Amino acid sequence: MSDTPDPLRRCIAQLARFPGIGERTATRLSYWLLRQPPEAALAIGSALMEMPAAMIRCSRCCNIASVDPCALCASNKREDGILCVVERPQDVSAIEGAGEYLGRYHILEGAISPLDGVGPEQLHIRELMARLDPEAITEVLIATDPDVEGDATALYLARLLKPLGVKVTRLAYGIAVGTEIEYADKSSVARAIENRREI
Amino acid sequence: MSDTPDPLRRCIAQLARFPGIGERTATRLSYWLLRQPPEAALAIGSALMEMPAAMIRCSRCCNIASVDPCALCASNKREDGILCVVERPQDVSAIEGAGEYLGRYHILEGAISPLDGVGPEQLHIRELMARLDPEAITEVLIATDPDVEGDATALYLARLLKPLGVKVTRLAYGIAVGTEIEYADKSSVARAIENRREI
Repeated sequence: MSDTPDPLRRCIAQLARFPGIGERTATRLSYWLLRQPPEAALAIGSALMEMPAAMIRCSRCCNIASVDPCALCASNKREDGILCVVERPQDVSAIEGAGEYLGRYHILEGAISPLDGVGPEQLHIRELMARLDPEAITEVLIATDPDVEGDATALYLARLLKPLGVKVTRLAYGIAVGTEIEYADKSSVARAIENRREI
Repeated sequence: MSDTPDPLRRCIAQLARFPGIGERTATRLSYWLLRQPPEAALAIGSALMEMPAAMIRCSRCCNIASVDPCALCASNKREDGILCVVERPQDVSAIEGAGEYLGRYHILEGAISPLDGVGPEQLHIRELMARLDPEAITEVLIATDPDVEGDATALYLARLLKPLGVKVTRLAYGIAVGTEIEYADKSSVARAIENRREI
């Protein structure tokens, strides 16, 4: 690297800060950038620079947004009274992509994980509770991950919400559509048995 | 994606322009960036924006550089009279990394490839020829890739240089150090047999 000119070396070092991008990939991306029209580096660089400053947190659902309330909270095409609680903003895209859910969202920004020092007070649970009355919430659909942290968070929320008369549901976890049972992982099969339904 | 705010969507789209980075990875990187201190996006973005404009081509070796002549051409610690000819700037780092070569370099910026419309006139061969006399070059070490294009380029250069009394050598290709012969690829074994040496 000692023979690499400074601006190029800086570009490689900065790209290598991204998780999953090592020095080798960062070098390949930098040389690729060099072979593009100058517009490319300007467009990519400025989009990166401007993005975080342009993002705020929606004061209602706690999602990342560019306006407050966010587009999903402000929309009059969504069903009121039902909230889907997710761990991360990315999860909203996954659920929206399925096209099955039409209610509102609430983003926890994590899951309860004592090992990582994340307790309920680190999550946007207070904000969730504050929405129940003003928005007349009758159902909370918990869509946390099917892992230890997601399960603990779901349980915690259920204990908090049920006494208030709110219906608490959770996404069904089981064998993924398209998976042959022979090749399904053990935990999915266990969940599928546990959650079996009468037909 | 329709629920993703514009600045974030733009950031994802711009990162996805990089080769090998799809929308899914670009999304992951963008959300990671959002969780970093604001300094991160500014540093990464500005390094990308400033890099191409800060880079020039060394008028001597045709390498990517921030000054002309480049550091390697300007250094008085290098051996004169020998040139190592490589396809790409990245190849210089690989050869420098081995610490075995102490001469100067010349970058072709590609290899002869009729199928891709790359002929000798698209490479920095004219610039190479112009260096022979003023720099009193006695040996040209050809370090093009061991593939059809690299071989064709090496052959072309040898035919051009030998009649001028310049010693033309090429990197040895064979079984990589640390590879068990059992697992070596066919072409490497073939090269190793072809280039066998008496011991």
